[in-house]
Amino acid sequence: MRIGFVGLGNMGLPMATNLFNGFKNEADFIIYDINQTTTSNFLKDHNTDANNKDKVKVAKSPLEVAKEATVIVTMLPASQHVESVYFGKDGLLEGLGENHLVVDASTIDQSMATRVAKVLQEKGAKAVDAPVSGGTGGAQAGTLTFMVGSRSTEDFDVAKPYLEKMGKNIVYCGTNGNGQVAKICNNMLLGISMIATSETMNLGVRMGMDPKLLAGILNTSSGRCWSSEVYNPCPGVLENSAATRGYTGGFGMPLMAKDLRLAVNAAVDTKSTVMLGALAQQLYNQMAANKEFEHLDFSAAYKWLAENSK
Amino acid sequence: MRIGFVGLGNMGLPMATNLFNGFKNEADFIIYDINQTTTSNFLKDHNTDANNKDKVKVAKSPLEVAKEATVIVTMLPASQHVESVYFGKDGLLEGLGENHLVVDASTIDQSMATRVAKVLQEKGAKAVDAPVSGGTGGAQAGTLTFMVGSRSTEDFDVAKPYLEKMGKNIVYCGTNGNGQVAKICNNMLLGISMIATSETMNLGVRMGMDPKLLAGILNTSSGRCWSSEVYNPCPGVLENSAATRGYTGGFGMPLMAKDLRLAVNAAVDTKSTVMLGALAQQLYNQMAANKEFEHLDFSAAYKWLAENSK
Amino acid sequence: MRIGFVGLGNMGLPMATNLFNGFKNEADFIIYDINQTTTSNFLKDHNTDANNKDKVKVAKSPLEVAKEATVIVTMLPASQHVESVYFGKDGLLEGLGENHLVVDASTIDQSMATRVAKVLQEKGAKAVDAPVSGGTGGAQAGTLTFMVGSRSTEDFDVAKPYLEKMGKNIVYCGTNGNGQVAKICNNMLLGISMIATSETMNLGVRMGMDPKLLAGILNTSSGRCWSSEVYNPCPGVLENSAATRGYTGGFGMPLMAKDLRLAVNAAVDTKSTVMLGALAQQLYNQMAANKEFEHLDFSAAYKWLAENSK
Amino acid sequence: MRIGFVGLGNMGLPMATNLFNGFKNEADFIIYDINQTTTSNFLKDHNTDANNKDKVKVAKSPLEVAKEATVIVTMLPASQHVESVYFGKDGLLEGLGENHLVVDASTIDQSMATRVAKVLQEKGAKAVDAPVSGGTGGAQAGTLTFMVGSRSTEDFDVAKPYLEKMGKNIVYCGTNGNGQVAKICNNMLLGISMIATSETMNLGVRMGMDPKLLAGILNTSSGRCWSSEVYNPCPGVLENSAATRGYTGGFGMPLMAKDLRLAVNAAVDTKSTVMLGALAQQLYNQMAANKEFEHLDFSAAYKWLAENSK
Repeated sequence: MRIGFVGLGNMGLPMATNLFNGFKNEADFIIYDINQTTTSNFLKDHNTDANNKDKVKVAKSPLEVAKEATVIVTMLPASQHVESVYFGKDGLLEGLGENHLVVDASTIDQSMATRVAKVLQEKGAKAVDAPVSGGTGGAQAGTLTFMVGSRSTEDFDVAKPYLEKMGKNIVYCGTNGNGQVAKICNNMLLGISMIATSETMNLGVRMGMDPKLLAGILNTSSGRCWSSEVYNPCPGVLENSAATRGYTGGFGMPLMAKDLRLAVNAAVDTKSTVMLGALAQQLYNQMAANKEFEHLDFSAAYKWLAENSK
Repeated sequence: MRIGFVGLGNMGLPMATNLFNGFKNEADFIIYDINQTTTSNFLKDHNTDANNKDKVKVAKSPLEVAKEATVIVTMLPASQHVESVYFGKDGLLEGLGENHLVVDASTIDQSMATRVAKVLQEKGAKAVDAPVSGGTGGAQAGTLTFMVGSRSTEDFDVAKPYLEKMGKNIVYCGTNGNGQVAKICNNMLLGISMIATSETMNLGVRMGMDPKLLAGILNTSSGRCWSSEVYNPCPGVLENSAATRGYTGGFGMPLMAKDLRLAVNAAVDTKSTVMLGALAQQLYNQMAANKEFEHLDFSAAYKWLAENSK
Repeated sequence: MRIGFVGLGNMGLPMATNLFNGFKNEADFIIYDINQTTTSNFLKDHNTDANNKDKVKVAKSPLEVAKEATVIVTMLPASQHVESVYFGKDGLLEGLGENHLVVDASTIDQSMATRVAKVLQEKGAKAVDAPVSGGTGGAQAGTLTFMVGSRSTEDFDVAKPYLEKMGKNIVYCGTNGNGQVAKICNNMLLGISMIATSETMNLGVRMGMDPKLLAGILNTSSGRCWSSEVYNPCPGVLENSAATRGYTGGFGMPLMAKDLRLAVNAAVDTKSTVMLGALAQQLYNQMAANKEFEHLDFSAAYKWLAENSK
Repeated sequence: MRIGFVGLGNMGLPMATNLFNGFKNEADFIIYDINQTTTSNFLKDHNTDANNKDKVKVAKSPLEVAKEATVIVTMLPASQHVESVYFGKDGLLEGLGENHLVVDASTIDQSMATRVAKVLQEKGAKAVDAPVSGGTGGAQAGTLTFMVGSRSTEDFDVAKPYLEKMGKNIVYCGTNGNGQVAKICNNMLLGISMIATSETMNLGVRMGMDPKLLAGILNTSSGRCWSSEVYNPCPGVLENSAATRGYTGGFGMPLMAKDLRLAVNAAVDTKSTVMLGALAQQLYNQMAANKEFEHLDFSAAYKWLAENSK
């Protein structure tokens, strides 16, 4: 068996590494990325089996990955990259057939995810969409959550063992495309909640309340949410939060802005109304466009509110 | 000892009843409300001690309450009623002195709460602000949460035994006025979260996802909040939610609109920014102004979104 | 005849000066302000008639103004000051009667304006509300617009000659309180339009378009508004705009924030929905709370948008 | 000379008719639309020259149009249709060369417009983007406004005579793509202004003011805009407005929703902030998704606000 991996960026590289470590006794590997430094480094680091010089191969195109591997994972930044890798010249599609399982872990819009699944299934391949949450930290620790859309629970079961090497929670979300729906919905709610928590903590502090005391009350009341309990955006409230370490690391502004864009476009496409979602999108866009904030964790929404009123 | 209670409305009446039941062996009562039917009914129901015809008295004014009782609880709709009951003609203030403990359980703005406390303390009385959450259900069951602001933890300790007859969680929030801060902050976060959860559930359902499955994923992910877990606004997701029983009962639109108005005004006063809070205020106002929605639980935000797109 | 003027602040001082200059041959004056430097300066500047040492008098209280003058103009910052000057101890009310015409030029909420009118009319006085637009520049030049609410067109006609000395457009808005309604409505629409124009100009410029060309197109199309034509917030588009002179002078952020607060509160009181109005309120609040922007003209909304994306 | 026209929908058909009538003495025509009933009707109506049976021809593909005509106008619903007509199989591109002038009057995103221009210019053709405003009424009357982006003013001058047969104002907006920028910016400002005017008129009416009086005051003050003056959304204020005739005809909700989607996506792409724009987008989306409002003029935002508060 040979396993293929396309897209070894900030998320993909640690995911591929965990997948390699989990299956190195059972499978060989083939990888592809447009950044050749990345792939040659991966080759150098992992192709250490003296008896098998082909343990890891670097492909010249996605097509080559499809020709050599039967299980393929892709992790790409956005819909247009998925289109190019799957359907472009020398793309995956040309090489896929009945023996393939293809997992796309990219976060893209639902329509592209269902289109990929449909086309691949017409060629006989198994296709699942499995976007992740958990960030680069989760990718490195192998503790990602995968939200999985698949044609059937059988397909889900076939994909699961591979996902389990890269993640901790493998969640079945229904039919193809639903992995994206779950991801987009969760992150829209998260994005709104984080700004709501930031507004609330900032208001309370300015009204004279101790932030830890306020957070404690919220977290035992009906205002509590993941953003107030686990990831409180006010510095000092939680010992190990992004906020307390200067909003470094974590989930960056441009990523949240991207996910909210997917949410707002999905809302327009389905004639849904997301007023708070649309406003939150603008606020993350604004922060992502600001030199001081673009590299900070998304919980720096608190810092934005607090500092703009000085 | 005689205990006084001013304001026997939807919330005040069950609170007064629980307080009576908790202290009837130790104290007599005196009550006041502008609605005389209410007070005479209370009198009829509770003045049943043949040996003590004065067990419960109905006062002619707040001042009479202050003259006869040493522990006084007030539960009033808004700041202007507090102003009138405390500082108006024949108001409480004229009769208060060093022996009094006064608990105001009304939800009002912080500045009025601190003004009440200051004036009462100048007369030597103990004053605490203790707004509640839990609704009429919690008031009847005696399971309210009290968010308490007081000059000192000593004052808090003096008030606590009385509050415990009416509520389950008695939370210390710091100095006078902080009870209001905690209440306003919690309810702003709650109000935003409920609309955010409604937008998210509606979006997911329109994208083709099963609502129970979606709620389950959110509730084990970073999008989870009290509104998604305990009070999910999508009918059928939770067996005993307001949504599942047609949005009857619960926490009404006008109450949420009122609390968000307090929040937005507090934000302007403290130069805080609450964009999501201000937008949520408008949405609850709109629903509270609509004949079909004004009597529904605030989680009917979901119904509003779902039906407006048909 | 003696004319009274209460409130000689940034707006009131030039208004009182114009009123004095317009009527100095026909009337004496009496003025009141809590700031005694202001009143003694006015006295020094205008009490120059050797034959009439009492040409201008400084009153010790609003009551004294009411006792001596028959025509009274008040120009105060907010509702609470109106309450105090009219209804407080030694306030105007105690001295008013059938011979008085009282013009309140303050911008306050409708309910306070109608209450003032009602109480004054019960004492027999004529009362009109006449909030202004035009800023300190218009106040100095005597080119203000007065939006006038009065019991009858007769009352309006009585007040008009006095207003014409201070302003250029004297607009009849209907019954008492309607001057406030017109002012609040106009300024809400203005406040939203200015941010909308700023968002539009910023978007167009970032999409690569020349700002003058874009403004020209908008101004001959359906997007045109006063903010794009007369007061374009993009520096350089108009030669004499606040934007072109660094956003100095003009209509300050805190004033727009105040007017929008009146609008949002009026909306809640009347169960109207003002989503864009509420969001605009938050944005002006945010700018008014920021050290760099609080002293700038409200068209600096453009600067806020442009700089936050750098 | 033969003139080609692709896309004879609600807008395209009257535009093509006016172009035909303007040039029938100088040129022959060739048309294409996927709806064959439309093209055969056009043929029947206009191919009436007994001496020239080929006066109007119906093409089998865009490619055939490109092969036969030297001046080509396209009027298509959205970017994906432009992509297909220009770059798809048997598309325009294959047949274009140095002798062609191509005018795309579709409203699409800037990036697609600049891509079309670039590719066409590489083949030697002249390409201009010229989206319109004025609606189907303007299309029929030949009074449209064209906002034109072109490589040079020379190209603009070459295109102008053709546009003048279909419109009244032919506005030069700068380089290729800028026609789209102007259209998107104008309509975003228009869309926001209409909701702002609706909120304002609704607020004023609910505060007790006569709507005509209020509109008159706004229109002579700083709140005035095209939406308040020319297209006031409150029924009865203007005799001939869409509002007064039941919001029939005019500029439909889905069209405004589409233009605001282009605006919001352009804002994200250029890191611009459009908070009011994003909120307005959601509001038009909501109305466009509602059975009662989807077919109404966009000024029915007033009706939405007024009726939702009953």
